Amino acid sequence: MVKTRQWLLAKKATDLPTYEGNNPNFKLTETELPDLKDDELLVKPIYLSNDPAQRGWISTEADPHRLYVPPVQEGKPMRARGLCEIIESKSSKHSKGDIVFANCGWSEDFVVPASECQPAPDLGNGLSRTLYLSAFGTTAMTAYFGLTEVANIKKEDIVVISGAAGATGSMCVQIAKKLVGCKRVIGIAGSDSKCKWVEKLGADVCLNYKSSSFAEDFRKKTTGPENFVDVYFDNVGGEILDLVLTRMARYGRIASCGAIANYNTTSDKATGLKNWFEVIQMRLQIKGFIVLDYMKDWPKATDILKNMLKEGKLEIEGGEHIVETKFEDIPKTWLMLFDGSNQGKLITALK
Amino acid sequence: MVKTRQWLLAKKATDLPTYEGNNPNFKLTETELPDLKDDELLVKPIYLSNDPAQRGWISTEADPHRLYVPPVQEGKPMRARGLCEIIESKSSKHSKGDIVFANCGWSEDFVVPASECQPAPDLGNGLSRTLYLSAFGTTAMTAYFGLTEVANIKKEDIVVISGAAGATGSMCVQIAKKLVGCKRVIGIAGSDSKCKWVEKLGADVCLNYKSSSFAEDFRKKTTGPENFVDVYFDNVGGEILDLVLTRMARYGRIASCGAIANYNTTSDKATGLKNWFEVIQMRLQIKGFIVLDYMKDWPKATDILKNMLKEGKLEIEGGEHIVETKFEDIPKTWLMLFDGSNQGKLITALK
Repeated sequence: MVKTRQWLLAKKATDLPTYEGNNPNFKLTETELPDLKDDELLVKPIYLSNDPAQRGWISTEADPHRLYVPPVQEGKPMRARGLCEIIESKSSKHSKGDIVFANCGWSEDFVVPASECQPAPDLGNGLSRTLYLSAFGTTAMTAYFGLTEVANIKKEDIVVISGAAGATGSMCVQIAKKLVGCKRVIGIAGSDSKCKWVEKLGADVCLNYKSSSFAEDFRKKTTGPENFVDVYFDNVGGEILDLVLTRMARYGRIASCGAIANYNTTSDKATGLKNWFEVIQMRLQIKGFIVLDYMKDWPKATDILKNMLKEGKLEIEGGEHIVETKFEDIPKTWLMLFDGSNQGKLITALK
Repeated sequence: MVKTRQWLLAKKATDLPTYEGNNPNFKLTETELPDLKDDELLVKPIYLSNDPAQRGWISTEADPHRLYVPPVQEGKPMRARGLCEIIESKSSKHSKGDIVFANCGWSEDFVVPASECQPAPDLGNGLSRTLYLSAFGTTAMTAYFGLTEVANIKKEDIVVISGAAGATGSMCVQIAKKLVGCKRVIGIAGSDSKCKWVEKLGADVCLNYKSSSFAEDFRKKTTGPENFVDVYFDNVGGEILDLVLTRMARYGRIASCGAIANYNTTSDKATGLKNWFEVIQMRLQIKGFIVLDYMKDWPKATDILKNMLKEGKLEIEGGEHIVETKFEDIPKTWLMLFDGSNQGKLITALK
């Protein structure tokens, strides 16, 4: 039996999750792992992926009939994907010492079915394996399929991307501008320095939504009809979505990817969308999507992104925010997703 | 010169429009019409079409770059379509005494370009010409194209229709159930007697949204996942849309046709949509549409609806709410669109 520490979901969340004090949402515990069975692996997470989507899995409103993955249950380890080292293998497909992707959760060690792990071989060229979580990770896949399949972007489109300095948004900017070559790419991010970085990635302009003149700045950049927005890749929902609705072009498309503006609240307290009539008068098309639906094409997309990197069209500098973290601080690092301090992909490097 | 009375848009509207008291939105006036030029007609409206869409044309928020038709300008006659008798013709295509469809506005007599009028010949079989405004009118076209082209309904779909006792909704119910044969059609309307009528039209059930148990009743009828909603034809927006979002099936489609719940308010005071995350987690597809985009196919759709009538699949009884109206009461009748007193197509019959 292997003893291990785990962060459990102690209580589903209604607002910003806590890990300290009375009655926290996450609780550190020690537990014994079951013995390895055939076709199982004992893995140790090295790098954890931190994703706003995880907040949805622990919401009091998460409904197993409606969420795209089963919600995390109270009393179970918090679910997370990560790059893990294999400590022990009872599978012929994986060897001790190999690095794999796994649903390892917030656990020091974890037993996982070998069939649910993907190999993460060395990338060569001195590239860090953390790229499996960032430029070639799930958030990169989200950017790629959201733009190309869901919103169907074309060269002639004016594209707006919110959360543009985040893991998904920063990939969106580069795919829209440097892969597809869209006419104009407007980023929206949460600080002047983030905006500067987003412009370095290729955005024609990036606007700081925390500026008091943001709504006015945005309207100026999208004064119609020739500057109306053809495609909006929405990572945030809330007030920014409500504003962008008023500047969409006729037959404009919205790829609805995330709604972080309201993740840390219950829906009754959410910022309501008020400009709905725009959907009708401008004949907008809105599609919600989940990147798991495109999984069979991930290898193809990964090849395209790797090729972008080779051709110098993919900037990876600044795209990873790696935080060296003690096991007992995992939730603290994860919460950086929600306080605006993160740029690019937030990765927990376990010490 | 012909003298005529007209209802002008005196002032754009922020809330429920008025026609009496200080500073009303509509104002009765007398004016002289210009002399007829070649290819023009002098027409006299007999039946006026009353449509919630007209409210959008007179909103303070109506933006000529964004509305699908030019907004009505202050000081100009209120725009409306109607069935008119030709009083004088300077066109070789139309004769005095013919009945045509025209953008006649709220005017006792009006001069219109002949090219913008459509003939409305006798329908035969003792059928009233008012059917050109109801079962074969613009609202019927809206129902037909919204369901078949925008939402792409199929036999296996569970379909929800709001405003189901209205001009568009009542046609939707019949097209979904009796033309396409959808698995289940759930109507939503504003009184028990309207609900009864909607069920008579073919809805499997119709729920009264003014009932205190409405949200609960709706949830019971759509308890998932096997009863989740595949298609929502939305005539109302607002709180009902917000509720239906929580019961949509995965990959469900919403045809966004109208938002009457918030027409008589400015967008800042609108009921905000709070359940946006459903769009993402359920991968919903929402399409706003304007029936004018399908105009080239209206004759085909009209033939289909005429055929439904011939085959006994289209109930026209109760589908017209004809209000005998003196010219000075035109706005009063029009306002019945918004007070819940109307069933089917609201038609003003000018005395």
